[in-house]
Amino acid sequence: MRVDVAFLPTDIKQHDLSDGICIVLDIFRATTSIVTAMANGCNAILPVSKIEDAHSLGKQINSPLFAGERQSIKIEGFDFGNSPYDFSTDKVQNRTIIMTTTNGTKAIQATEGSYLTLIGSFINAAAVCKQARQYGKDIVIVCAGTEQHFSLEDALCAGLLVHILSEEEDSIMTDAALGARVMYDGAKSSIIAVASNSKNGKRLCDIDRVNDIEYCLQLNTVSVVPRYNNGKITLLDAQN
Amino acid sequence: MRVDVAFLPTDIKQHDLSDGICIVLDIFRATTSIVTAMANGCNAILPVSKIEDAHSLGKQINSPLFAGERQSIKIEGFDFGNSPYDFSTDKVQNRTIIMTTTNGTKAIQATEGSYLTLIGSFINAAAVCKQARQYGKDIVIVCAGTEQHFSLEDALCAGLLVHILSEEEDSIMTDAALGARVMYDGAKSSIIAVASNSKNGKRLCDIDRVNDIEYCLQLNTVSVVPRYNNGKITLLDAQN
Repeated sequence: MRVDVAFLPTDIKQHDLSDGICIVLDIFRATTSIVTAMANGCNAILPVSKIEDAHSLGKQINSPLFAGERQSIKIEGFDFGNSPYDFSTDKVQNRTIIMTTTNGTKAIQATEGSYLTLIGSFINAAAVCKQARQYGKDIVIVCAGTEQHFSLEDALCAGLLVHILSEEEDSIMTDAALGARVMYDGAKSSIIAVASNSKNGKRLCDIDRVNDIEYCLQLNTVSVVPRYNNGKITLLDAQN
Repeated sequence: MRVDVAFLPTDIKQHDLSDGICIVLDIFRATTSIVTAMANGCNAILPVSKIEDAHSLGKQINSPLFAGERQSIKIEGFDFGNSPYDFSTDKVQNRTIIMTTTNGTKAIQATEGSYLTLIGSFINAAAVCKQARQYGKDIVIVCAGTEQHFSLEDALCAGLLVHILSEEEDSIMTDAALGARVMYDGAKSSIIAVASNSKNGKRLCDIDRVNDIEYCLQLNTVSVVPRYNNGKITLLDAQN
């Protein structure tokens, strides 16, 4: 089992995805919010890139909720922004959410054509690794990044996943996977301080969302594993 | 002063190079060998991408030496491969070397158009940082990578340079710079073991060049700073 890390979605062009498992990470905050929503009983999430696509998709389904941000701020007229605290059980249970975010949605869609695309985060790290490795296929951890730039918090979570996946003896790590693991190991004892110093971390501090940072860096608080397939995110188990 | 790291030469497209300083790293082994050759009195190094370009350039200059490798092995008919031990004073003093390597040469050429391109390595880390920051301009540390893939040893050296450059209070670090620094800090106490586990490290072990690995990971053994300009590498001081 080969484990690789794509620090940007554009890096995954190098891989043959059709026989590989992708784990997409957009820690601040899209994939953490998706995992939270699915853990809280959300029926499905439909990720779209553009705000106008969200509106036109909304006309085709029954009473959807709309979630999304631009520059970390909730889109006008939408039900939710992108804070994981938005997606509480009372609001999302048995509902379908149409979601558009700056980087996360695009990263998820960039894995189209993979054997399987899973949604990862710090909060479901162990669960997503357990699911990913059970197929015995190569794994590509895909960091969403920020507007085509390397994103520290995504790379740190990638390192955590590599760390967990390294526990299997048959794992072969690429240099990017080794680098991410060393990065995580170097930062883990002060992960909140390190991640708060990232570009997105600073932006969340600026808009008074320090609680989001702390939430997104919690380890293994949930065991759900969302899957993206054909335009839709559902729980992996629900589709098997 | 903004400090960024491009983990691959293709990442530097994002930057406006014309007012920036580039520091190119290809630790195993091109830039370490270039720094060694310049420290040992080499007159100039002319990097070219292709073997045929090396031959045609060789006809235009007086008694050049030829250096280069493909897949870590010396090119047939050339004077040197790419081991830093090849470039000893008795062989290179006052000579001009035409050099072609798999990744290093291409990375150097990718910085064409920068305000200044410097050649970095572990062995001249402090010196290259001291030179780079004296201009007060933004700095982009460019990792050569390996055939368009992330290269662990280059990223580790980038992290060392960020670490050194962070000592200036006015430095602003991008996420990639922060990530590289955390990576280096996490690995520095066992740098030989970590870098030997990289793809290129393993290849050097396979061809019995463990001594090259150890040489390339030495810290600040020389104080020369080679500069690339208009197809030619010379000592920075020699051009000022």
